[in-house]
Amino acid sequence: MIPPSHPRYRSLVTRERLAKCAKSGIVSWEGLTAHGRGEAFDYLLGEETAESARLAGKIAAALLISARHPVISVNGNTAALAAKEIAALQKASGALVEVNLFHRTEERVQQIEELLRSAGAEVFSGEAERLLPLDHDRAWCRREGMYSADVILVPLEDGDRCEALVKMGKTVIAIDLNPLSRTARKATLTIVDELTRALPEITRACNSLTPEECPQLIASLNNHYLLSEAIREMTVRLNRALD
Amino acid sequence: MIPPSHPRYRSLVTRERLAKCAKSGIVSWEGLTAHGRGEAFDYLLGEETAESARLAGKIAAALLISARHPVISVNGNTAALAAKEIAALQKASGALVEVNLFHRTEERVQQIEELLRSAGAEVFSGEAERLLPLDHDRAWCRREGMYSADVILVPLEDGDRCEALVKMGKTVIAIDLNPLSRTARKATLTIVDELTRALPEITRACNSLTPEECPQLIASLNNHYLLSEAIREMTVRLNRALD
Repeated sequence: MIPPSHPRYRSLVTRERLAKCAKSGIVSWEGLTAHGRGEAFDYLLGEETAESARLAGKIAAALLISARHPVISVNGNTAALAAKEIAALQKASGALVEVNLFHRTEERVQQIEELLRSAGAEVFSGEAERLLPLDHDRAWCRREGMYSADVILVPLEDGDRCEALVKMGKTVIAIDLNPLSRTARKATLTIVDELTRALPEITRACNSLTPEECPQLIASLNNHYLLSEAIREMTVRLNRALD
Repeated sequence: MIPPSHPRYRSLVTRERLAKCAKSGIVSWEGLTAHGRGEAFDYLLGEETAESARLAGKIAAALLISARHPVISVNGNTAALAAKEIAALQKASGALVEVNLFHRTEERVQQIEELLRSAGAEVFSGEAERLLPLDHDRAWCRREGMYSADVILVPLEDGDRCEALVKMGKTVIAIDLNPLSRTARKATLTIVDELTRALPEITRACNSLTPEECPQLIASLNNHYLLSEAIREMTVRLNRALD
């Protein structure tokens, strides 16, 4: 039992939740390592949402609510960390929620779909096909789901798949704490922020943006600038570290 | 099965090895997340040994071969990632190899000792006592082992224990990819590098240093400089990342 007064309470509770989900099979063992990687970059951000990430979240909201067929792609870590936040964003954005896994088994897919449903999400499910140009299990998706999406939100994505989706002509929104990752560089829009902070930011923006603001925000999108700003935040913190 | 064409193949295979060792009990759950944090910092180093880390490795070798009673402390992640490299360093430095765990059970200790022995290390084993001034299981060690050490190499250490060992008057050499961690700041000497690159560097230096070079290297030790250099490397890479 972690006391709420612990200075690392949030981080430790999150780790405990992930470990629990790893035991039940929702999170892969590799997912725990990926989470640690994110933790390190979040540390460099001071575990706070930067101004640039807040702007990226608003642009993401504009893209999602302006889309013809928006889809939120959910993997094990995303479901374990943020099932409720995904459900809330689905309500605010009208996006389909579809499960897509790197370490894919039918059992894991079902467990994750169940977790999402119990958090209030409507999950787009059914027969999957190997539709994406990738040589591993992430190629599996549904023809009427992310295969047909024009805008796709991929929290905690791998670089391969992000690139493949962009090459298919999709607008890809990534949430990635590592501003140097291939995912971060290849995505149309990258939110460099922690998942459970980033998703509610997008949801709030979906609920508050006016129809006039959306095209303006979309026209302003400059991912190179957003990544540069995230990197600048991190270098400032690194440089101060030994003072 | 990870396809060898994946651009992060090496990193993913390492993760897979750790996950396998987590299933067998050698690596703890927390160890998987900790590995991920290290990966993030290694990313910032370009997954290469920096000049400052090479110098730190040489000083580490000088300290080990000049020591009266050098000990290498091995935990689950270290054994899983670098059992062979530990055995090679033991041969080159003449250090004792002793297992010390944060999440300690007799079964885990034995599994890790077995793994080290199968990689060619001679493991200093036998009855352990609660000898270090720490309030958790890392307090356990052997009186003739690390309790009596003058120089102790602690790869992938936690900050608590690093600090306790320094307070006991020991020369503590840490290998830690996070130059901001308490371990990195509290150790006598910190090698900011990835374990399987850092250990062979120390081994090579043990085999090549002359008796004259050792005291010179030891006299030159300035850990604040080494950490600053590591941080500088990371900020340079961060700043160049989007060029």
